[in-house]
Amino acid sequence: MSDLPQRVEIHEEGPREGFQIEPPGFSIADRAALVEALADCGLRQIQVASFVNPKRVPQMADAAELFAAIRKRPDVRYTALWLNEQGFERARATAAVDLAGTLYFYASDAFSRLNNGCGAAQHAQEQRRWVARYRDANLPIQSAYVMTAFGCNIEGEVSEETLATSLRFIASLEQGEGFRLPKLYLADTVGLGHPLAVRRRVDLARSILPHARVGLHLHDTRGLGMANALAALEQGVDLFDASIAALGGCPFCGNAHGGAAGNICTEDLAFLCEQMGVATGLDLQRLVDAARLAERIIGRRLEGKLMHSGIPQARGQRAARAVT
Amino acid sequence: MSDLPQRVEIHEEGPREGFQIEPPGFSIADRAALVEALADCGLRQIQVASFVNPKRVPQMADAAELFAAIRKRPDVRYTALWLNEQGFERARATAAVDLAGTLYFYASDAFSRLNNGCGAAQHAQEQRRWVARYRDANLPIQSAYVMTAFGCNIEGEVSEETLATSLRFIASLEQGEGFRLPKLYLADTVGLGHPLAVRRRVDLARSILPHARVGLHLHDTRGLGMANALAALEQGVDLFDASIAALGGCPFCGNAHGGAAGNICTEDLAFLCEQMGVATGLDLQRLVDAARLAERIIGRRLEGKLMHSGIPQARGQRAARAVT
Repeated sequence: MSDLPQRVEIHEEGPREGFQIEPPGFSIADRAALVEALADCGLRQIQVASFVNPKRVPQMADAAELFAAIRKRPDVRYTALWLNEQGFERARATAAVDLAGTLYFYASDAFSRLNNGCGAAQHAQEQRRWVARYRDANLPIQSAYVMTAFGCNIEGEVSEETLATSLRFIASLEQGEGFRLPKLYLADTVGLGHPLAVRRRVDLARSILPHARVGLHLHDTRGLGMANALAALEQGVDLFDASIAALGGCPFCGNAHGGAAGNICTEDLAFLCEQMGVATGLDLQRLVDAARLAERIIGRRLEGKLMHSGIPQARGQRAARAVT
Repeated sequence: MSDLPQRVEIHEEGPREGFQIEPPGFSIADRAALVEALADCGLRQIQVASFVNPKRVPQMADAAELFAAIRKRPDVRYTALWLNEQGFERARATAAVDLAGTLYFYASDAFSRLNNGCGAAQHAQEQRRWVARYRDANLPIQSAYVMTAFGCNIEGEVSEETLATSLRFIASLEQGEGFRLPKLYLADTVGLGHPLAVRRRVDLARSILPHARVGLHLHDTRGLGMANALAALEQGVDLFDASIAALGGCPFCGNAHGGAAGNICTEDLAFLCEQMGVATGLDLQRLVDAARLAERIIGRRLEGKLMHSGIPQARGQRAARAVT
């Protein structure tokens, strides 16, 4: 456990991950209030919304209005997601968006075909255009995500060699385009990662991109999210995406029966870290309050745990009565 | 990770943990069908019900009838819980109950007072009577649980020295009464454990009771259940209690807002183990089917993850479409 970081940085994904899978119609006021509550927890990067095709994702059609409605804190980055030029232009036209040069790669070829209409290699080549596009916009490349870095539902587990191919392409792109990637995220898009794989693939990423800070975007699709986070922490990983109250999920990431869980839960991850003496800079009670606000807005029980059980205190709480 | 066990033994707690916190009235036929489905998963020890005060726990009033209704497998132990002489006699009078000499201790004095009406030390002394009682009944002592081994909601964290006091009492009881404890369970009754504490307390238990096999009874009250299970596996712990579909929970183990989560989820724990090459002897698909049966019986979404996302297969599954 000697590799545990002293401090971790948790980026909040809930406002985008959560509401993009809910039916449309949640008010801008409610969603802005949630983002504001999250900023008051100490979170310093919050993904607010995505600028994507409003026909395909009507929940995000009002992304610009949402950004405009949020009372901003100067110390928080309010980020957005886009997938094509049109979305990027809409994001650029929205003053409050904290633009960041982000690249996306896929370890799974089959998953890329279904998500992007082209294979992983071609999709990777197209990222070259984004590097130029961001350069034209004076946006330095801040991070790259390797999606399905552990596998996908079509191919099953993706081999480490296949992941290495994606990572080596990124390294070659850095050299060819003359930039150095600050942050490299391994995304367990459909929850196929497990602790041994996390350790091996974090090491692999560091060996191929030694200058990049490796982060993890974990989904709790199959219940291993927090165990995978622990495995990463034990490797010294200090950068995680998470969603308040475990907001989110993906109806397509599992094989039916109620869909799949979303990102690992922000407040539960923060509790794990704080309990082990790893600083998060977050206010746990405010996180729990924000999670409960998210639950009130969504209108059904959400799957975060700490939000329901509460933060343990030394005294004055109602006694437990469970036998074992 | 070199201390990972080759094989783990998972004991099923769902039928008792789950239905004792639900309203009464679930049919014996449904509960028997669930127990039978669990036995068909490869689980070799299943806690079916508790023999406790039917006025306080009406859900368990029909425990004897439930035991009688189950189609038994010869290779499965169908166990029960009792807390007093009356309950023990009812269990003994029920032919199908797999009786086992089990002792209970409390690390938290305040928790013991609220649960037992006496402090931890006095409750421990009373276990001496149970040792004699089991001897009279020709029941060897099979296991001891130290409840609130990590802390409780009243006292907060229980110190390792306080836990050591409970463990030393058990060692002295062994010497005085002339038995050797096969299994010692550390129970994280209210979910205050974290991975560093799991490691230290497993080591502590092994140092004081070196001949006992140390097991963990983990609750996911605050979301750290699977991370704690990983920490235990990394210590070579090969004995766990768990509940199918994460059945269970405790309205008193948290501090309000919807109660607290129950045991760690059987099928998710089994998936964690199998993904890391630790054999469970369990059929994952049957576990998922049993979890879905539990969900149909309970009649609301249960919190297990694998049961909703499904077991990853190499091919032919619906594609994932999440962006990150």
